[in-house]
Amino acid sequence: MATAEIITVGTELLLGQLVDTNTTFIAKALADAGIDVHRETSVGDNTARIATAIREAIDRADCVIVAGGLGPTVDDLTREAAAEATKRPLELHEHSLERIKGMFARLGRPMAENNRRQALMPAGAVVLDNDFGTAPGFIVEEGRRAVIAVPGVPREMKAMISDQVVPWLLAKYDVSATIVTRVLNTIGLGESDLDSRIADLFHAGVNPSIAVLAHFGQVDVKLTAKAANREAAIAMLDQLEPLVRERLPDCIYAVDGGPIEHVVGDLLRARAWTLATAESCTGGLIASMLTSVAGASDYYLGGVVSYANEAKLDFLDVAPDLIEQHGAVSEEVATAMAVGVKAHLRSTCAIAVTGIAGPGGGSEEKPVGLVYVALTGPDPQAEVRKLMLPGDREMIQRRAAIAALSMLWKTARA
Amino acid sequence: MATAEIITVGTELLLGQLVDTNTTFIAKALADAGIDVHRETSVGDNTARIATAIREAIDRADCVIVAGGLGPTVDDLTREAAAEATKRPLELHEHSLERIKGMFARLGRPMAENNRRQALMPAGAVVLDNDFGTAPGFIVEEGRRAVIAVPGVPREMKAMISDQVVPWLLAKYDVSATIVTRVLNTIGLGESDLDSRIADLFHAGVNPSIAVLAHFGQVDVKLTAKAANREAAIAMLDQLEPLVRERLPDCIYAVDGGPIEHVVGDLLRARAWTLATAESCTGGLIASMLTSVAGASDYYLGGVVSYANEAKLDFLDVAPDLIEQHGAVSEEVATAMAVGVKAHLRSTCAIAVTGIAGPGGGSEEKPVGLVYVALTGPDPQAEVRKLMLPGDREMIQRRAAIAALSMLWKTARA
Repeated sequence: MATAEIITVGTELLLGQLVDTNTTFIAKALADAGIDVHRETSVGDNTARIATAIREAIDRADCVIVAGGLGPTVDDLTREAAAEATKRPLELHEHSLERIKGMFARLGRPMAENNRRQALMPAGAVVLDNDFGTAPGFIVEEGRRAVIAVPGVPREMKAMISDQVVPWLLAKYDVSATIVTRVLNTIGLGESDLDSRIADLFHAGVNPSIAVLAHFGQVDVKLTAKAANREAAIAMLDQLEPLVRERLPDCIYAVDGGPIEHVVGDLLRARAWTLATAESCTGGLIASMLTSVAGASDYYLGGVVSYANEAKLDFLDVAPDLIEQHGAVSEEVATAMAVGVKAHLRSTCAIAVTGIAGPGGGSEEKPVGLVYVALTGPDPQAEVRKLMLPGDREMIQRRAAIAALSMLWKTARA
Repeated sequence: MATAEIITVGTELLLGQLVDTNTTFIAKALADAGIDVHRETSVGDNTARIATAIREAIDRADCVIVAGGLGPTVDDLTREAAAEATKRPLELHEHSLERIKGMFARLGRPMAENNRRQALMPAGAVVLDNDFGTAPGFIVEEGRRAVIAVPGVPREMKAMISDQVVPWLLAKYDVSATIVTRVLNTIGLGESDLDSRIADLFHAGVNPSIAVLAHFGQVDVKLTAKAANREAAIAMLDQLEPLVRERLPDCIYAVDGGPIEHVVGDLLRARAWTLATAESCTGGLIASMLTSVAGASDYYLGGVVSYANEAKLDFLDVAPDLIEQHGAVSEEVATAMAVGVKAHLRSTCAIAVTGIAGPGGGSEEKPVGLVYVALTGPDPQAEVRKLMLPGDREMIQRRAAIAALSMLWKTARA
């Protein structure tokens, strides 16, 4: 079993100006490769501190991956720090210099003198070409141990980690464990509610493990198994999954399926159904989620954001009496909105949302968080759900949108 | 000057299952308080490793803030680790136990035996009450040095850091430096373009410093000054800001203003203008951005997501001939969409977007990234801009939305 540490370099990380998603990406890539990460460290743009962090890490772990600090400026100090930590001189690497010159030539721009620094490498390093930028990475080996430096620009880092670093690590360390994960995408339960239903099944650090991951109104259950090979890991997940499903009836809408708007889109396409939307309190969020998916025009026709009542009357033919009698936030108006937009666009189905996202606009009778979602499908009878959603404006809008898409999912898969 | 380190605890961080935004929040809070963070570390749910990380950090820095590992389960080990690192026994803290019991009583749920563990504290610790959850935090002092533990749940952590930890640190350490930041919100320039215009003004680590922060289609320029007091820091920023503005004429739409949808909303409200939208390739994103702002109903009436051509004809009265002659993605159709939605909702102004977000649907004549944005304001003459936007589908949609809001901003502030 090989162990690793990750070091990210950049004063902006220490100032809280940047979220360190590079560490997350590298950690996941290593976990997937079966390499154990024991520690992650961030340090600023300071040669001595970077060198100390590298030296400490490589004294604890088999390999250390350093991301960032390979740019052309005087603040990019990872080359110097890695040389210091591994006691090697920096040498000009001609192949890398030629590549950097070539990149500028193709862009038709002169190469700044600064960029020469990017071709400096600790003596004896394995050089990692960068296909997306000027900063090459490198690997310095110390027997079984290795210091690996990659650029901090996410696109360049990701390509170098996936295409060069992980294969190199797998070859160097006889990594015998494989980690396989499986994500169960759920709807309809909050994080703590879901957690309490499966809490007794799960203990962190146990293999296979279960993690509940909430992200912005949706909750995923992630199953992770570590085994000698892929088949064995999959067999472990196949045993675990039914235990989780038993606890979450009617909540799992997909396996490794991604956001609900993708899964619903695939269902609509498969059934050759078309969809229209009418949104009040979600203000276009449902339309925006649907059209974030490439190819949405196969099933999504469009819709109306009927934020003001005029828009409900003009575009959706909601009767003014209906609004007067029941209020804009009501079962009746939600239904009329869905029926109206469906008639206009002659779609197979339509969803409509009206509610109070807050923070203002609530009353005792109709508080912030009250939302009605209406669905009309091939069956002419519309279905309406009344929801009381917790959270701030953003979360209420998001939860209402997900609830509407969940209703559609249940109808379309039926 | 006080120095700090931050440690976050959780095996999910080492597996890349969670992005560590807690570190970012704490780092920013400390920077704002004038406390220098020199290192950030993440470790897994392992008592010995957490204790080692704490001991190492407190030997380097004045204080170490540990986030996470204060929950009720056997995997929550920060209490034990902090006690080990500071060589103190764990003792039951009666006041905290009473608070935890009270919290369960209010929820009408029985307290699990596990939750008693959350009332264990290193002997002599200052206890930090948690108003949003069951896990109290604590501070163990070693002369000038301090180990501070806070929960990992973001909401609980944030309240505890802002309301209790930062004031405690300011009182304990005579923090003589104050950091003041000022964010210039820009539109119309890409990150690298903007960067190259001001690159010679800025050197990381210099005081005052300039950072270019790109986030999803918008670019901010952040000025940071460190001085003995707030007034002196502000004076430094007042000197720096005009130098930056000189390089970025007509690009800065706000100072500390946040996203463009907020600034545009405030402008519309101030002028008592109303707005309608008609969106093809942005698919409701503009409506969604506008209605993410509380109080948007003061100026935003609604709009149409005219994804399919039927929606352009039915809702926006775009003439079929116009689409046939010029295509749905054309200056003429963009204008007709804006005029159509404005007439329907009788708004002061309207913006319309039509384009090709890709990845499919492009042609040689009309490639992916081609977008037309039309604006019609109080002046009956509509204004149209043709854009060729780089990036993937998500970025093209986002950039088109921001371009439309930028046009509106320029008209509304004129």
